[in-house]
Amino acid sequence: MQHILILGAGLSASSLIKYLLDYSEEFNWHIRLGDLSVETADAKINHHPRGEAFYFNVNDDKQCADEVQKADIVVSMLPASLHYRVARACVDLSKNMVTASYVSPQIEALQEEAKAKGVLILNEIGVDPGIDHMSAMQIIDRIKVEGGNILSFQSSTGGLVAPKYDNNPWNYKFTWNPRNVVIAGQGVSTFIRNGNYKYIPYHKLFRRILRTEVLDFGEFEIYPNRDSLKYREIYGLDNIPSMFRGTMRRPGFSRSWDIFVQLGMTDDTFVLEDSENMTYREFVNSFLRYETKITVETKLAKYLGIDEDSEIMYKLRWLDLFKPIKIGLKRATPAQILQHILLKKWVLEKDDKDMIVMQHRFEVALGDEKKTIVSSMAVEGTDQTHTAMSKTVGYPVAIACKLILTGQIKDAGVKLPLDESIYKPILKELADFGIRFIEEEIEN
Amino acid sequence: MQHILILGAGLSASSLIKYLLDYSEEFNWHIRLGDLSVETADAKINHHPRGEAFYFNVNDDKQCADEVQKADIVVSMLPASLHYRVARACVDLSKNMVTASYVSPQIEALQEEAKAKGVLILNEIGVDPGIDHMSAMQIIDRIKVEGGNILSFQSSTGGLVAPKYDNNPWNYKFTWNPRNVVIAGQGVSTFIRNGNYKYIPYHKLFRRILRTEVLDFGEFEIYPNRDSLKYREIYGLDNIPSMFRGTMRRPGFSRSWDIFVQLGMTDDTFVLEDSENMTYREFVNSFLRYETKITVETKLAKYLGIDEDSEIMYKLRWLDLFKPIKIGLKRATPAQILQHILLKKWVLEKDDKDMIVMQHRFEVALGDEKKTIVSSMAVEGTDQTHTAMSKTVGYPVAIACKLILTGQIKDAGVKLPLDESIYKPILKELADFGIRFIEEEIEN
Repeated sequence: MQHILILGAGLSASSLIKYLLDYSEEFNWHIRLGDLSVETADAKINHHPRGEAFYFNVNDDKQCADEVQKADIVVSMLPASLHYRVARACVDLSKNMVTASYVSPQIEALQEEAKAKGVLILNEIGVDPGIDHMSAMQIIDRIKVEGGNILSFQSSTGGLVAPKYDNNPWNYKFTWNPRNVVIAGQGVSTFIRNGNYKYIPYHKLFRRILRTEVLDFGEFEIYPNRDSLKYREIYGLDNIPSMFRGTMRRPGFSRSWDIFVQLGMTDDTFVLEDSENMTYREFVNSFLRYETKITVETKLAKYLGIDEDSEIMYKLRWLDLFKPIKIGLKRATPAQILQHILLKKWVLEKDDKDMIVMQHRFEVALGDEKKTIVSSMAVEGTDQTHTAMSKTVGYPVAIACKLILTGQIKDAGVKLPLDESIYKPILKELADFGIRFIEEEIEN
Repeated sequence: MQHILILGAGLSASSLIKYLLDYSEEFNWHIRLGDLSVETADAKINHHPRGEAFYFNVNDDKQCADEVQKADIVVSMLPASLHYRVARACVDLSKNMVTASYVSPQIEALQEEAKAKGVLILNEIGVDPGIDHMSAMQIIDRIKVEGGNILSFQSSTGGLVAPKYDNNPWNYKFTWNPRNVVIAGQGVSTFIRNGNYKYIPYHKLFRRILRTEVLDFGEFEIYPNRDSLKYREIYGLDNIPSMFRGTMRRPGFSRSWDIFVQLGMTDDTFVLEDSENMTYREFVNSFLRYETKITVETKLAKYLGIDEDSEIMYKLRWLDLFKPIKIGLKRATPAQILQHILLKKWVLEKDDKDMIVMQHRFEVALGDEKKTIVSSMAVEGTDQTHTAMSKTVGYPVAIACKLILTGQIKDAGVKLPLDESIYKPILKELADFGIRFIEEEIEN
């Protein structure tokens, strides 16, 4: 019998847990699922004979070491900042580990130790990062084998509401950590185009968008997603002239979201005076000039150079942004208040389903010939538990876990899923779950 | 004989050192001036029989303690971040200390210890902070004695070039730490107007300006200067409906400076790729869209919504911003590159003189009557050493030092110059140096 330790039983772990429980009989696995809330963990195990829920506190070093010691493999679905403690224990006790999060510098620093001990710490194997890496590398490796030269690579992902349920004026609902949506893109975004480095400050980000179409899902817009440059090295494309990573939204979203950015409502660095007793309307007014003779609506439109009868103003009114509704949050930052307001409206209803879209676009030179390869994926959620987000994050983690336990992935060190030996079997099995890429080729 | 220890011999210490040396015979003082550069310190002492220059390294705890032990008073003109080590030694060894910098939380934490030992740590007694506090408190205290109620207080300061030498299209030259000018205003700026809190994000700051006239020096514009709210408590105006602090520039400066902010050129948080080999023109282009069919100039004007034949574009061209001049700075941030470009043009020439302007504007209710009190100060530099900045920073520090040594200021604890016993004699003597406020009263 092999023992799997899963840490963290949150929403994004649902499909992962189901997958491993479903295969537990066949492979003779026993699964321990730890969470600060035993209730949440219990619900996910749902009396499965091969599963067990328990109270887990990552800050308890002894418990962490004891649990890791008992396991054959550890899957950490904890918040990203907590992975290091688990990784440290895994390296110390020579246990393999899988996470869906970005490699932190702390975990990266375990590289030599992990290699020496033959321990695999496999990271960034969710959806973004994860499926993006694997699906990109599969195409990149193939183009290289064919002798092609990649001139441009553009990769974008979006977490959205599925078309059938996409019925609000923003064409957006929270399907993912709302806080990350509110503060997305802060800092500078960087990419390279035809050898020209480009830097976009946050306050210009949502006005520097690209457009694309994905399969028969219609049009999307793409805003740049932070540091695209580092992916040149990661993907072995060090000298590529154009490299861009982006986030996908439905058309019109970015232009309207930019209103919040321009006003200063996404700032998470300071607390508003007496935020508790402020109304939504006063919140808006606190970012506008002092002027008593015109309405807050008129002031906002004038300040940001938009028409009062524009659709943007309608979207803001639809959020109740100008209403005298009390905020009721103590010592809140603008970002916290904005999140609070959006959470009342951007709700995924009981029967709503979410969607993940991803698209890679390669420009390739093969001898004298040039072509564009577009590879697209769209996945809808099954229900409120097995959302598209939960499936696309969880299945690759779960499959990797299975492949390691069955000896099909044999590796050591702090790794990303960039090697064919890892991505090929995982992408193959993901297709069985409907997570598959459709490739189109356009001759230039 | 009394011993004065001055730490830091930089430009802003020139007038301070001269003042104390000038009075050293009369009061029987001996002055030790420590700096990392003995040469700089030597030049400031200039063979004065009562002065002595020496190598001083604040990070050498033993030297710091030894020097403080030998002194009767310590004046720290070191960079603000280094004051704490000196303050710590002063409290330990029961020596009074004077600085022109903002009280840091670390120094504030010495409050009880300093009081218990009867040690005075007098801070914020330069120009801004310093003369602003003292001149404001003198008026505030007087209005309170007269039974008036202060409805609004607006206080602004600017470091500029004197009118006679104000001969470039920006009406601005560096008269002060250029780095602080380049990164000024980053974060949020906050003030209150008629009971309404206002928050301005950095990317909107330079478009939210006020205008004023100062004496016969003509028109100035004012942009908000970070957190104005905390001054309500500092000045004992806790319930004032309007409180605003600002920075003064000549008309048109802010609108043009905003171009740098909008592009992202004042960002100091990331390093540009291969900054060393980039040209000014490529630097500009790195913040603009990729587009090959129009010039960088046209792209910039379109992107920021300004006319190509506007004066703003002229000001940018005057800085050589569009020229293919090599930057030559390794691993530089945008802010460092912008500073490098500006330093070639915004130079105070050999015979140029600088200017400090300051203006307070109070709206006061006295019974049924309302009036506006405007109190203004303008000081020009004497020469390149005794600049307006050096005089307005140095004289109040020097005078405070004299008043403490002669027993006219008797106080203990970590203090600001807010009490009449401190500000009254200092403002009186500053007037002898031409640093005086002219008050105008406007009946509403």
